[in-house]
Amino acid sequence: MSLGPGQNGMRKRRSTKTGLPPGALVHIGEKKAEKVKINILGYDENQYEEKEARTIEECFPLKDKPTITWINIDGLHQVDIIEKIGKKIDLHPLILEDILNTEQRPKIEDFETCIYIVLKMLYYDEKTNEIDSEQVSIIFGHNFVISFQEKEVDVFNPLREIIRTHKGRIRKMGADYLAYSLIDTIVDGYFLILEKLGENIEDVEEIMMANPSPETLKDIHKLKRRMISLRKSVWPLREVVSALERSESSLIHDQTQIYLKDVYDHTIQVIDSVEINRDVLSGMLDVYLSSISNKMNEIMKVLTIIATIFIPLTFIVGVYGMNFEFMPELTWYWGYPAIWGVMLLIGISMLFYFRKRKWI
Amino acid sequence: MSLGPGQNGMRKRRSTKTGLPPGALVHIGEKKAEKVKINILGYDENQYEEKEARTIEECFPLKDKPTITWINIDGLHQVDIIEKIGKKIDLHPLILEDILNTEQRPKIEDFETCIYIVLKMLYYDEKTNEIDSEQVSIIFGHNFVISFQEKEVDVFNPLREIIRTHKGRIRKMGADYLAYSLIDTIVDGYFLILEKLGENIEDVEEIMMANPSPETLKDIHKLKRRMISLRKSVWPLREVVSALERSESSLIHDQTQIYLKDVYDHTIQVIDSVEINRDVLSGMLDVYLSSISNKMNEIMKVLTIIATIFIPLTFIVGVYGMNFEFMPELTWYWGYPAIWGVMLLIGISMLFYFRKRKWI
Amino acid sequence: MSLGPGQNGMRKRRSTKTGLPPGALVHIGEKKAEKVKINILGYDENQYEEKEARTIEECFPLKDKPTITWINIDGLHQVDIIEKIGKKIDLHPLILEDILNTEQRPKIEDFETCIYIVLKMLYYDEKTNEIDSEQVSIIFGHNFVISFQEKEVDVFNPLREIIRTHKGRIRKMGADYLAYSLIDTIVDGYFLILEKLGENIEDVEEIMMANPSPETLKDIHKLKRRMISLRKSVWPLREVVSALERSESSLIHDQTQIYLKDVYDHTIQVIDSVEINRDVLSGMLDVYLSSISNKMNEIMKVLTIIATIFIPLTFIVGVYGMNFEFMPELTWYWGYPAIWGVMLLIGISMLFYFRKRKWI
Amino acid sequence: MSLGPGQNGMRKRRSTKTGLPPGALVHIGEKKAEKVKINILGYDENQYEEKEARTIEECFPLKDKPTITWINIDGLHQVDIIEKIGKKIDLHPLILEDILNTEQRPKIEDFETCIYIVLKMLYYDEKTNEIDSEQVSIIFGHNFVISFQEKEVDVFNPLREIIRTHKGRIRKMGADYLAYSLIDTIVDGYFLILEKLGENIEDVEEIMMANPSPETLKDIHKLKRRMISLRKSVWPLREVVSALERSESSLIHDQTQIYLKDVYDHTIQVIDSVEINRDVLSGMLDVYLSSISNKMNEIMKVLTIIATIFIPLTFIVGVYGMNFEFMPELTWYWGYPAIWGVMLLIGISMLFYFRKRKWI
Amino acid sequence: MSLGPGQNGMRKRRSTKTGLPPGALVHIGEKKAEKVKINILGYDENQYEEKEARTIEECFPLKDKPTITWINIDGLHQVDIIEKIGKKIDLHPLILEDILNTEQRPKIEDFETCIYIVLKMLYYDEKTNEIDSEQVSIIFGHNFVISFQEKEVDVFNPLREIIRTHKGRIRKMGADYLAYSLIDTIVDGYFLILEKLGENIEDVEEIMMANPSPETLKDIHKLKRRMISLRKSVWPLREVVSALERSESSLIHDQTQIYLKDVYDHTIQVIDSVEINRDVLSGMLDVYLSSISNKMNEIMKVLTIIATIFIPLTFIVGVYGMNFEFMPELTWYWGYPAIWGVMLLIGISMLFYFRKRKWI
Repeated sequence: MSLGPGQNGMRKRRSTKTGLPPGALVHIGEKKAEKVKINILGYDENQYEEKEARTIEECFPLKDKPTITWINIDGLHQVDIIEKIGKKIDLHPLILEDILNTEQRPKIEDFETCIYIVLKMLYYDEKTNEIDSEQVSIIFGHNFVISFQEKEVDVFNPLREIIRTHKGRIRKMGADYLAYSLIDTIVDGYFLILEKLGENIEDVEEIMMANPSPETLKDIHKLKRRMISLRKSVWPLREVVSALERSESSLIHDQTQIYLKDVYDHTIQVIDSVEINRDVLSGMLDVYLSSISNKMNEIMKVLTIIATIFIPLTFIVGVYGMNFEFMPELTWYWGYPAIWGVMLLIGISMLFYFRKRKWI
Repeated sequence: MSLGPGQNGMRKRRSTKTGLPPGALVHIGEKKAEKVKINILGYDENQYEEKEARTIEECFPLKDKPTITWINIDGLHQVDIIEKIGKKIDLHPLILEDILNTEQRPKIEDFETCIYIVLKMLYYDEKTNEIDSEQVSIIFGHNFVISFQEKEVDVFNPLREIIRTHKGRIRKMGADYLAYSLIDTIVDGYFLILEKLGENIEDVEEIMMANPSPETLKDIHKLKRRMISLRKSVWPLREVVSALERSESSLIHDQTQIYLKDVYDHTIQVIDSVEINRDVLSGMLDVYLSSISNKMNEIMKVLTIIATIFIPLTFIVGVYGMNFEFMPELTWYWGYPAIWGVMLLIGISMLFYFRKRKWI
Repeated sequence: MSLGPGQNGMRKRRSTKTGLPPGALVHIGEKKAEKVKINILGYDENQYEEKEARTIEECFPLKDKPTITWINIDGLHQVDIIEKIGKKIDLHPLILEDILNTEQRPKIEDFETCIYIVLKMLYYDEKTNEIDSEQVSIIFGHNFVISFQEKEVDVFNPLREIIRTHKGRIRKMGADYLAYSLIDTIVDGYFLILEKLGENIEDVEEIMMANPSPETLKDIHKLKRRMISLRKSVWPLREVVSALERSESSLIHDQTQIYLKDVYDHTIQVIDSVEINRDVLSGMLDVYLSSISNKMNEIMKVLTIIATIFIPLTFIVGVYGMNFEFMPELTWYWGYPAIWGVMLLIGISMLFYFRKRKWI
Repeated sequence: MSLGPGQNGMRKRRSTKTGLPPGALVHIGEKKAEKVKINILGYDENQYEEKEARTIEECFPLKDKPTITWINIDGLHQVDIIEKIGKKIDLHPLILEDILNTEQRPKIEDFETCIYIVLKMLYYDEKTNEIDSEQVSIIFGHNFVISFQEKEVDVFNPLREIIRTHKGRIRKMGADYLAYSLIDTIVDGYFLILEKLGENIEDVEEIMMANPSPETLKDIHKLKRRMISLRKSVWPLREVVSALERSESSLIHDQTQIYLKDVYDHTIQVIDSVEINRDVLSGMLDVYLSSISNKMNEIMKVLTIIATIFIPLTFIVGVYGMNFEFMPELTWYWGYPAIWGVMLLIGISMLFYFRKRKWI
Repeated sequence: MSLGPGQNGMRKRRSTKTGLPPGALVHIGEKKAEKVKINILGYDENQYEEKEARTIEECFPLKDKPTITWINIDGLHQVDIIEKIGKKIDLHPLILEDILNTEQRPKIEDFETCIYIVLKMLYYDEKTNEIDSEQVSIIFGHNFVISFQEKEVDVFNPLREIIRTHKGRIRKMGADYLAYSLIDTIVDGYFLILEKLGENIEDVEEIMMANPSPETLKDIHKLKRRMISLRKSVWPLREVVSALERSESSLIHDQTQIYLKDVYDHTIQVIDSVEINRDVLSGMLDVYLSSISNKMNEIMKVLTIIATIFIPLTFIVGVYGMNFEFMPELTWYWGYPAIWGVMLLIGISMLFYFRKRKWI
């Protein structure tokens, strides 16, 4: 599962950077896109402009216009682009480093002229049945939003469509509302993941109730690990959104506050679901273990019943298989049928005993 | 079980809304009622008026009177009604959205002119033995309360009866007291659920002590899941009531404060009970597992006793079933009775050994 | 077990009150006493007066004297008495309701003229080996204390005796000190319960170490449930005492503060003990389960040893019980003793093997 | 184990004091010393005086000198001594009561003229392998320290030696530094206990890894209970030292502050160790249980292999032990060797099967 | 494992120091280096000087220059060096003691003229597969940093190289930035440990899934203990870095603040990983235990199938091995084939039964 950049990610990071001074700009992480793609969108209530830029310099004039400018960069491996943006909007070197380090913990930094946010976007890969994560950095200032993605994906396309078609209130609001819309889109992605995991849990639960197998255990274990990893992403997400909501930065207008509160409520809802799923999975493990031991019990019961009935009977037939010269019973005419009678009696009374003990 | 709207609910929600701008008004959730029903109640200490409205416009003149007006709307699928109310009392679009989204987490929003509360009402469905939940939104201002329910149920009827018959102090108090009464009614519903679950726990416990079966395990698991889900509704409920109690809004009069504290105490009592029930269910699982392993132990004991007694005896009779030509014992006259004597001795001494070890 | 009024109590309460307006005075709970008994005690440093009142009106003149007046009411089912007291000292209707509702969570309400406290008094019923609880409400003002009990018990008698005989410092102190003394007496009751439960735990532990049986498990489960219930009473008790200690009410004199701190320390001690006992009981459950599985292990070992020794031997004697015409060994003169030798060898070498594996 | 005065101690306390007014001076606890011993030490930077007092009155003149006076009282059963000291330095009656009640929870009381501290001193009894506890009360004012111990032990002797020989900085510091030194000595005692328990844990762990037996389980359980009890003493100790460190009493000089911080760090270290040991013990229990079930598994495997090989073989020899008149195989010349060949084949192929399944 | 200085370390410490006054300077811990080595580095933006000092006195002139001076001391067993430094920069005796006591808990002390920090540096010893820890003390003032290590290791060499080659921004910043760089280097070491432990966990997990053995359990237990020990170092590390970040000392410049926040984020990331690993290890234990019980189940199933099939058949052949004179079946011509038919029928129908029960 690639969701858990935990030890793996850190490992790579540190190995790469050891010996470099803090602040050196190196892209850490998988190179996920072939070519860096720069998309620019400029709008206000009346105008709308969109273009694909070749170089980052093309973006800057747009940024200085009074309209809201959204620069979206897909692909982080061209370090010079990040560097130029950094110089243009005067970002602290550590922030540039953070944008490039894709193993960052979700966090928020509040500067006077802009706010920097790192988040994890999660995708459910239908083919491999795994959760994939990508780092999204968002910088927004008075009239611009710059977003960095690791690869080109289309999660922000519906948002572009909304801006293009002048739906909703986004064209009337500022850059902070656009940043909120990006965050909201990311948080919505978590719900989709939860939905998928929820379906998986229900599937496993059904199998577990019907026919538990060692595979079931491994599935539960896998889901548990995913929940642990999801949890790892969600808690810092909550912190970030909460910090943003409580922020007193002048970049966030009053009318955006209620939307931030709304997205905060959604992160809480995600956390609630993660915690509940963890509880449910723990409960499932208990039930699984009990089912297994129940099954074992039944097998043991059958063995016991068969063995306890036939062991004494086998002994009896053994007795009359002995070759002693003087065994009077052997010469009796009714000896054979009598011994059958005795054995039937023993067998039946044992069955009665078992029924009384409620074993069968 | 339909209590847990957790992943299911969110799933639906997100699938429905993906691609829509935030703020678009769509009813999310099951359409639980055929027709939207609007009930209006106007009262003060001296007057009382009640009517069934056909359109929402009928309600507005009443709202502007000095009397307290309670508008109750059953059914959320007629979006235009919600929209008209929103315009009339100047509600934020996000709130309208929240009213329509029946998968909302319980929350409270404090505006200057009104307070908005979302809660979950729980019902115990006797037929299916399941817990059903419905979202109730309450908006109250200086002289009006508007409540939204998903379907027509009669939980608020006793309250209407109290107002009608001028019982208690409700007619003398303001809109805040009416809102409190609605919340109190909802919290009371939680006690009924707890009562039912408590009964179920006791039933399962009785069965578990008398005759535990794999079914018992599934019942414990089911009750545990319900407790988890109930917990999910109760904790945010506590937060909402606590926020309302500590609110410094001018809409809440001093004399209502103590009633809010009372209902807050009730939510704490609900939480206490949920937590205790969770502890009790965990304990029951332990006891169940031990009972099962105890039962297995007893079965094993019987097997062991039968096997350890008869295996050596069967060996002995096997010995004298051998066909060696030269086996002196076979020709002895007392050989057969002697071997019986030896075998009895072995059997009895084994039984003594078992008794000494306290196995039987 | 009657300690846990949890779901049961709430159930009754809600069923009784459903449909009544909040504030309606109804006695909820078992009617534990036949007749309501009113006991009045008036004292200051120099005087002392005590009498049994027939009606509650008799108490009031006393209350207006400068001396400290302690009115103790045993039995809550005569609602009019509570109502009259409520009117006399001008209590909020909700408080009257709380006094009558014996399923109240321990709490404190701080009014200007008086402080209202609800606590649970616990008794250990030696006959049924169960914990019984009773609700005690205490109202104290500048110069009076009114205490309500559900039934007539003698826990406060030693306190009366101390007042009567002018022992200690109680006669020199105010009503707040008397209230403290009542609370202290109640908290002391918790120590007695803990003592009893501690004894029970030690008894069960002893049995568990010596001869664990399925009964032991049920005992541990029962003790655990009692601990859970006790915990439920103790934590709110702590809150109440802590609120009282930190209270800035003018009704509590500075010199009483240190006594309240002392009783608060005691509640902490009770909580410590409850938590430790819970830990100990959890540990006992682990040990019990291991003991059971150890016992099973031993039984299995015996079975294995017997079976693994005799199954091959039985096979061997079976071989020479075959009726083939051409089996040379059968006609050898030393065949029979030789086979005995072989079998002894097998048996002994197996025993050696088992000893080497440390199974016997 | 005598460490856990928990329920036992409380029990005694309450039984002894029931019916007495709060504040009555009674010595509660075991009488651990024969005779009360009073030791007085007076010093400043230049002088030093030490004597054994016969009566408590001898101490008082010394106390009024400008030098620092340390009065140490071993043995609490002479209530009048405590009473006289109480009058001399004007202690609150509840404090006197607390000194005498040896089941006190560690606590601190800050008066204007003196600070009162109760702590538990722990000893490891090498003979009985148990932890013994003793209550130490420390009262210190501007120029005096009075310490109360239950019995005469020599833990404070090294400290006396340091004062006597003018080592370190103690002779230059005030009474607060002496009090700190006493507390530091007590906290150091906890490290010794932890060391002993740590050794015990390592011993048990070694045994567990090499040869787990039911005794091991009981040892783990015992160590766990000790850890629980130690924890009970340590957490309030931390609270006391923390309160002392944060105290704004004028009795504590600025230069002593850093030493108090140091001793506070030590208590944190003790808590860390206790919590880690608890975790380690929990882990050990898991490993123990698995070891036991592993052992069981191996035993079962041997049984299964023996049984599954020989049961079919025994059946085969049984077949040819039948006495049918018409069994052609019995008269074949190669019948007997052939049957041996068949049986060997079966046995060997089964062994192969087992190896393939990795059972042997 | 040498990571956990927990009880062991404390033990040594206390035994060594018992009887000494607080403040006596003794080196506690293993003597890890042969000779104390003193390394001095002086730099500002333009100059750079580095030398190996023979005596500590050589360092002092450098310290008084306006350049930043970094004195690094490897080896703590020469107490006089520490003492001289203490006098030179006027350190509190307790701090000197703390530097020498290598069993210190990570902590920070904020003086006016300097800040003192103790941290644990962790190394992964590839040869023994164990975690080794070393105490690092850092003292920094306006223009100097003094660092103490237990032995000579080269972790700080990359940092020296960066200063030497004038890379990054370190030469432009003050002593606080140098101290930050040291801390950052230490925290980076934790990531390396986590990486190693993460690899170990993955290795064990792989083995566990493929072929769990009792060794696996011991490995899980070992990893769990290491995680517990790591956790013990990490939490106080977080506290130290957090205190440093929030410190209002004038020694920390504003522009260093953001770097401290960055290193704080890293400690949080370490803690997150430790907690997740603990969860994962717990989950692995559950899976391991279930795997073992699954394996047992399979073995039991084989035994049961073999036994339940052959036990009745063996009985049947036993019947016809009896020597009764009058057993008509024995003389039937088709008796022998008939009995084979019956036995085949029984065997096959049993196999069918087992398949129906899904046992095979």
